[in-house]
Amino acid sequence: MATSFYPPQRILMGPGPSDISPRVLAALARPTIGHLDPLFIQLMDEIKALLQYAFQTSNELTLPVSAPGSAGMEACFVNLVSPGDTVVVCSNGVFGGRMKENVERCGATAVMVEDAWGEPVSVDKAAAALAAHPEASVLAFVHAETSTGVASDAAALCALAREHGALSIVDTVTSLGGIEVKVDDWGADAVYSGSQKCLSCVPGISPVTFSPRAVDHIQQRKHKVQSWFLDMQLVMGYWGGAAKRAYHHTAPVNNLYALHESLVMLEEEGLENAFARHLRNHRALVAGLEAMGLSMAVEAPHRLPQLNAVTIPEGVDDAAVRSALLEEFSLEIGAGLGALAGKTWRIGLMGYASNARNVGTCITALEAVLGRQGAPIKLGAGLPAARALLAD
Amino acid sequence: MATSFYPPQRILMGPGPSDISPRVLAALARPTIGHLDPLFIQLMDEIKALLQYAFQTSNELTLPVSAPGSAGMEACFVNLVSPGDTVVVCSNGVFGGRMKENVERCGATAVMVEDAWGEPVSVDKAAAALAAHPEASVLAFVHAETSTGVASDAAALCALAREHGALSIVDTVTSLGGIEVKVDDWGADAVYSGSQKCLSCVPGISPVTFSPRAVDHIQQRKHKVQSWFLDMQLVMGYWGGAAKRAYHHTAPVNNLYALHESLVMLEEEGLENAFARHLRNHRALVAGLEAMGLSMAVEAPHRLPQLNAVTIPEGVDDAAVRSALLEEFSLEIGAGLGALAGKTWRIGLMGYASNARNVGTCITALEAVLGRQGAPIKLGAGLPAARALLAD
Repeated sequence: MATSFYPPQRILMGPGPSDISPRVLAALARPTIGHLDPLFIQLMDEIKALLQYAFQTSNELTLPVSAPGSAGMEACFVNLVSPGDTVVVCSNGVFGGRMKENVERCGATAVMVEDAWGEPVSVDKAAAALAAHPEASVLAFVHAETSTGVASDAAALCALAREHGALSIVDTVTSLGGIEVKVDDWGADAVYSGSQKCLSCVPGISPVTFSPRAVDHIQQRKHKVQSWFLDMQLVMGYWGGAAKRAYHHTAPVNNLYALHESLVMLEEEGLENAFARHLRNHRALVAGLEAMGLSMAVEAPHRLPQLNAVTIPEGVDDAAVRSALLEEFSLEIGAGLGALAGKTWRIGLMGYASNARNVGTCITALEAVLGRQGAPIKLGAGLPAARALLAD
Repeated sequence: MATSFYPPQRILMGPGPSDISPRVLAALARPTIGHLDPLFIQLMDEIKALLQYAFQTSNELTLPVSAPGSAGMEACFVNLVSPGDTVVVCSNGVFGGRMKENVERCGATAVMVEDAWGEPVSVDKAAAALAAHPEASVLAFVHAETSTGVASDAAALCALAREHGALSIVDTVTSLGGIEVKVDDWGADAVYSGSQKCLSCVPGISPVTFSPRAVDHIQQRKHKVQSWFLDMQLVMGYWGGAAKRAYHHTAPVNNLYALHESLVMLEEEGLENAFARHLRNHRALVAGLEAMGLSMAVEAPHRLPQLNAVTIPEGVDDAAVRSALLEEFSLEIGAGLGALAGKTWRIGLMGYASNARNVGTCITALEAVLGRQGAPIKLGAGLPAARALLAD
């Protein structure tokens, strides 16, 4: 006979989920109401407005997809791409590769712009690909690559798409709430994110926003969207501004309580303050790790403050270090993905987890575990270096 | 500036979500751990085993899709149906129509077997459709139509599919945990359900199970599954029995705590006891409503104990009654859907909500509101009739 599950209290410094505020967990557990309850409809309107704030957009079609970020990605592709289309996909990590899968499963052709894992997307290469493919109708790229900790130039890439007359699809799963995501300023057309990164909400929800240009495109489609669940024309009937909301699917009510609370907290703090906090804790972590003798895997200008890729020193047993951190310190950091497996760690400082305590705990725990493994690190140097920057 | 949302405590007697146990809400709010945490992997194994218990199956590929029931439906169709296929779809309510949408969006042809809303699927008509379409590779039907409160003969329909050499896709969104769902005995091939009905978990998760025959079919597909998010070959890498779980998407960790707890409660009670409880409360509700002078919309042999369709008496203002129940009694009942809008109410007695208190509250609240509207009901007759059956 199975019994109730009591998880331990972890410190979540991997690539997400991140630590969640007790306020958000309390909201999550409030009594469920119906997905057509008038009070729930009001909550939906507030969530839309708060997501517009987070995305810095006035896009009317801004809502949380009722599924994880990979479904949010799919929502963007299946609504904007039709069979026979050509899509330029910029790939510099795992999620660019996933975009290619999405394009091909829509019956379209993906023209790949490849950059090395750990490097940002090359705007020049993307421009060349668009020039070579005048038929391309969409440019897709990842703003903040979760697999490598690299930021790309979203403003430049969205501008490129517009000049070409193409729509842009932008992955902001790891960026939203952690660094600037300026959907309107960029002129981005379809943007998706995740709940469990810098918003520090529970995993399972994917905020998306579509520009009026993207909505026009969706309304003029000749080929039905291949996913019924993700068809924005249908989803709009439930989330849209109409007085009467039409049932489409049962919304994940409690997850939306949690998302609402996490967005209320973001608004209370203010976007600028949240970005400044992410940057301060990132700089302190980097100073500490470098003082300890570790190296960052990404060049300084392209680093994501919320996801820090660290080179695993020669001779260190990756899995043993992560296991020791988890077992002894209840601290989760992320493994490298794909080409970077065994080569980097990914240390998240996302949302509620981006705080001075976590910076200090991570540095001291890593020092203890690496020191025991005989790694060439400077004992005692990391924490003071980090704390010097936290005191600012 | 938005502020925290505090929902009222409703009594959820609509078509789902249903009332949720405090045990499940407490589980939901436990600290989030990573989706690759070794302790979470253990939890996933327990959830699989508990879902096998609920579905009465030994199917290895049994897991919760990380999205609502309509995504579980789509998971079954996109994995089993390829472009050019023919699928016989039995429709006797909203969800049969949604199945047709799914088939067509897979590039396949739906042969419709139509029965009236409020009637069960005709096994004879389904047999005739299969005979007329020897090329049909799938038979799809809804076991428990949420839009009408009607049960169909799943055992007979699955047997029909097997005789024809076709796979069966079965919607058990409203049946699982409330009435018998015997996946192995039926020989059903792809079965999906929802978390927020008779399992009384939060909405947003869709348990699914695939027979070995369905898994073979998936593995031999020539055409890639059109949804990356719902591609079972990929999902299996994370949920499968392999020692090393491969990241596919970030699981909705907290929702799975809640699902686990709701399944633990189901196992503690025992399936047979849960079914008996649903039946007892249903009989009491029906006795009370009929004593009051109301009529059930579905013939007795086809009624779902967990979802009671009641004919709205002539001259009664549907929306006003439901609003009054919600505002004065915090009691939610369901409106009619589609062809039955304004003609029936749907009163759920699902999972944790199937209890004697809710039967009594619903009867007395309905009596008060209908009496005030001058509907032709017998005052004071409903509750004693219901209580006589609850005392058993």
